[in-house]
Amino acid sequence: MSQASSAWSSSLNTNNPIPPSIPELSNGFRRVLAHIAGDGRLLTDPADCWAYGYDNSRRHALPQAVVFASDEEQILQLVSLCRDAGVPLTARGRGTGTTGATVPDRGGVVLSLERMDRILQIIPEDRLAIVQPGVLNAQLQQAVGDLGFFWPPDPTSAATCTIGGNLAYNSAGPRAVKYGTARESTLGLRVVTGRGEALRTGVMTTKGVVGYDLTRLIIGSEGTLAIITEATLKLTPLPETKRTLRATYKDIHAAAAAVSAIMAQPIIPCALEFMDASAIATVRHYAEFDLPDGAGAALMIELDGSAACIEESVSAVCAAARNAGLLELRRAESKEEIAALWKTRKALSPTLRHIAPKKINEDVVVPVSRMGEFIEGLEQLSQSTGIRIVNFGHAGNGNIHVNLLIDPDDPDEVARAAECLDAVFALVLRLDGTLSGEHGVGIEKRDFVGQELGPTALALMADIKRCFDPAGILNAGKGFPSP
Amino acid sequence: MSQASSAWSSSLNTNNPIPPSIPELSNGFRRVLAHIAGDGRLLTDPADCWAYGYDNSRRHALPQAVVFASDEEQILQLVSLCRDAGVPLTARGRGTGTTGATVPDRGGVVLSLERMDRILQIIPEDRLAIVQPGVLNAQLQQAVGDLGFFWPPDPTSAATCTIGGNLAYNSAGPRAVKYGTARESTLGLRVVTGRGEALRTGVMTTKGVVGYDLTRLIIGSEGTLAIITEATLKLTPLPETKRTLRATYKDIHAAAAAVSAIMAQPIIPCALEFMDASAIATVRHYAEFDLPDGAGAALMIELDGSAACIEESVSAVCAAARNAGLLELRRAESKEEIAALWKTRKALSPTLRHIAPKKINEDVVVPVSRMGEFIEGLEQLSQSTGIRIVNFGHAGNGNIHVNLLIDPDDPDEVARAAECLDAVFALVLRLDGTLSGEHGVGIEKRDFVGQELGPTALALMADIKRCFDPAGILNAGKGFPSP
Repeated sequence: MSQASSAWSSSLNTNNPIPPSIPELSNGFRRVLAHIAGDGRLLTDPADCWAYGYDNSRRHALPQAVVFASDEEQILQLVSLCRDAGVPLTARGRGTGTTGATVPDRGGVVLSLERMDRILQIIPEDRLAIVQPGVLNAQLQQAVGDLGFFWPPDPTSAATCTIGGNLAYNSAGPRAVKYGTARESTLGLRVVTGRGEALRTGVMTTKGVVGYDLTRLIIGSEGTLAIITEATLKLTPLPETKRTLRATYKDIHAAAAAVSAIMAQPIIPCALEFMDASAIATVRHYAEFDLPDGAGAALMIELDGSAACIEESVSAVCAAARNAGLLELRRAESKEEIAALWKTRKALSPTLRHIAPKKINEDVVVPVSRMGEFIEGLEQLSQSTGIRIVNFGHAGNGNIHVNLLIDPDDPDEVARAAECLDAVFALVLRLDGTLSGEHGVGIEKRDFVGQELGPTALALMADIKRCFDPAGILNAGKGFPSP
Repeated sequence: MSQASSAWSSSLNTNNPIPPSIPELSNGFRRVLAHIAGDGRLLTDPADCWAYGYDNSRRHALPQAVVFASDEEQILQLVSLCRDAGVPLTARGRGTGTTGATVPDRGGVVLSLERMDRILQIIPEDRLAIVQPGVLNAQLQQAVGDLGFFWPPDPTSAATCTIGGNLAYNSAGPRAVKYGTARESTLGLRVVTGRGEALRTGVMTTKGVVGYDLTRLIIGSEGTLAIITEATLKLTPLPETKRTLRATYKDIHAAAAAVSAIMAQPIIPCALEFMDASAIATVRHYAEFDLPDGAGAALMIELDGSAACIEESVSAVCAAARNAGLLELRRAESKEEIAALWKTRKALSPTLRHIAPKKINEDVVVPVSRMGEFIEGLEQLSQSTGIRIVNFGHAGNGNIHVNLLIDPDDPDEVARAAECLDAVFALVLRLDGTLSGEHGVGIEKRDFVGQELGPTALALMADIKRCFDPAGILNAGKGFPSP
């Protein structure tokens, strides 16, 4: 993020950072805001507010004020103030999102939840943890790991992203293939809606059917419905051991068939990642690399379970992974070998960033059975538009990170990339896929989601938004196309 | 159900079955209704409509018309007709619910989905099935079972209940402890809202974060938001084999501690059922029974997995099940032994119905760690109110079927039972539990849910209901207290 942020700031005029279309906050508002925020919990100097204006997209917009959340009561007062004044309020964790969802493009107040970072309770007998939204994913994993549990969502940014952010985006990661996303691992929430009302959603138990499911409605809503002030998370017992395999195939069709076969038998891997031919070519070019010649696609497969059963699981998954297009199936025996196998996969992101610092990274999803067809379509698009496309991602979910490597200083290439992206999204929808698997919509994709959702669903979602936030202050304009 | 229905009909006046407070359907409405319904798809004679007025609660109300759904277009027209005329519309599967949720207590039209019973597509490579709402749970399990899969929700009524009903109630069953409920096993829906608009919710993939999660909002909404016309279900590969254990404890505290210990290790059983002392006494009295003397609680534990690993799983779970209060731990080796072990558990429902045909059966949930405390509280309530209470259920989820055995012809006992039930619900909420784990609210519990949800959540849910169904025609008055 630090490399990229210097690029952003250089492209922005820091002398007049608030666009004239955004009205000044009144003195009266500022006075009450300072009172509500409390000592040492308010920033208003543009230089101080600056860092709260970006996320891990290429976007930045300066908020007029930043408040550090302290507790539910303060948030209730803040929401009521903004609601009455019609001032935009954008809740934010640590800004690791990639879609601009926390970039305050309408100005107003950013509410940083980063200081509400306490793990309130861990109840191992009930397999749950109650946390404040600013707890870091890694911090939670450490705390519950000591007791023999983990929380399934494991985004790449786990070390720095917050649970509140994970819930706002319905974050996932490699483990989702076996353990699901944030929606499947959350029992209940405490929230403050845009009306300025606090409520509890969900339950403290793994079953519950009283009332509508507001918990999952709010999870993934990108801060547009309510601000999460507390979450009751469902924990999963840590597996005893893991094994790592790498399967290399002559082409994407063979790899996709293997993914289907693996997912159709009862031993579900805890990670099932893939790289296409162009991803393989990329790492091969930039990193020392040991994939067999002719490799057209590779799968990284991680299995977990009890020590006594893991060999059986490895056999079952190897059997499913074997088909006529398999070139090589390797397993890692030692920690060093595991690290070596993952090196290939993990070399991808930095390598791609090195080649194209301003690459466009999409996280579309297609049904597993359509993956081969999808990658083939992308290859054709790459040829017809002249845009280099590199694909990798979470194959078990059909969640593919499509990377368009572009030079943003070449206006012709930028135009062709936009055209290419349109075609990628159209292809995804034609294959019964979805435009985002885990990154969300934010600003980046809001103009595209209408193609997926259709006007009836969009109107209904806008109505639901109005129920939670009639003044339209909570992260307004994010996640959906402008009406 | 047949025993009970004779009781209901005898208590109702069949000569004037529609209460005078419900207005007649106009001739104009009836004419259009006949046209929309289509040939052989409309009932209006009270004798024909009769059977569509009850569910598996003790309630009955006669609908003024019954329409058999044929397709989305017909349902769209029907909803529009009812919306414009303000006529209540109650969607219904096979009427196996226990809360009166499909009983048309405001008259109007019942829409039976039972003839929309086609499995449209099974895609094994994507682990999904696309079905119409009238498909029976057992019919689906058979079809996908032939391909090596199952759909996790397994209510006791699986042989006769529909997928649409399972989704409307978010149905579960014993397997939920490992595999979750309908919410975790559904990818997307097609629905018709109360506005008379069709839309698709969710995705065809196991990940997707575009827009709000309408899928899970509609699942469990008891037909109050929209009518499900198609569902895309997430399938799970069938495990290779199963093992069954029965653990007997000296008291409920020892059993509850074992449940916590079992749930805190990584081998999650596919069923973890329990019976309390009074349930044991009941079956012991009425059925041949082989539990050890002094048994104060019993657990039925079912494990699934691969043949090569199952013994290891049995050992791990047996180790967790052992504590100072364990009296006996038995495993079934043969099919006959498995049947014998389950016999005890399965003898409960018929035995209880034999003792008290009009027993009150609740399905509350408490955190697993509070189960001992809860059962003890129920024992005290039983003593103080003189109502016999028998408890069994899905221990791994803390989902306890609390049975109040009452004689409905004894007005004093009925009054004490009402008082007792109030106290049971208060106890559940004090222990951080929920009033329903899988049966839902319907009519039976609607006056109680306000205690759990609170006024802010109730108001928000009423607003959401108005977004989907502004005319308030879809199963109005169910699931929530009257305003």
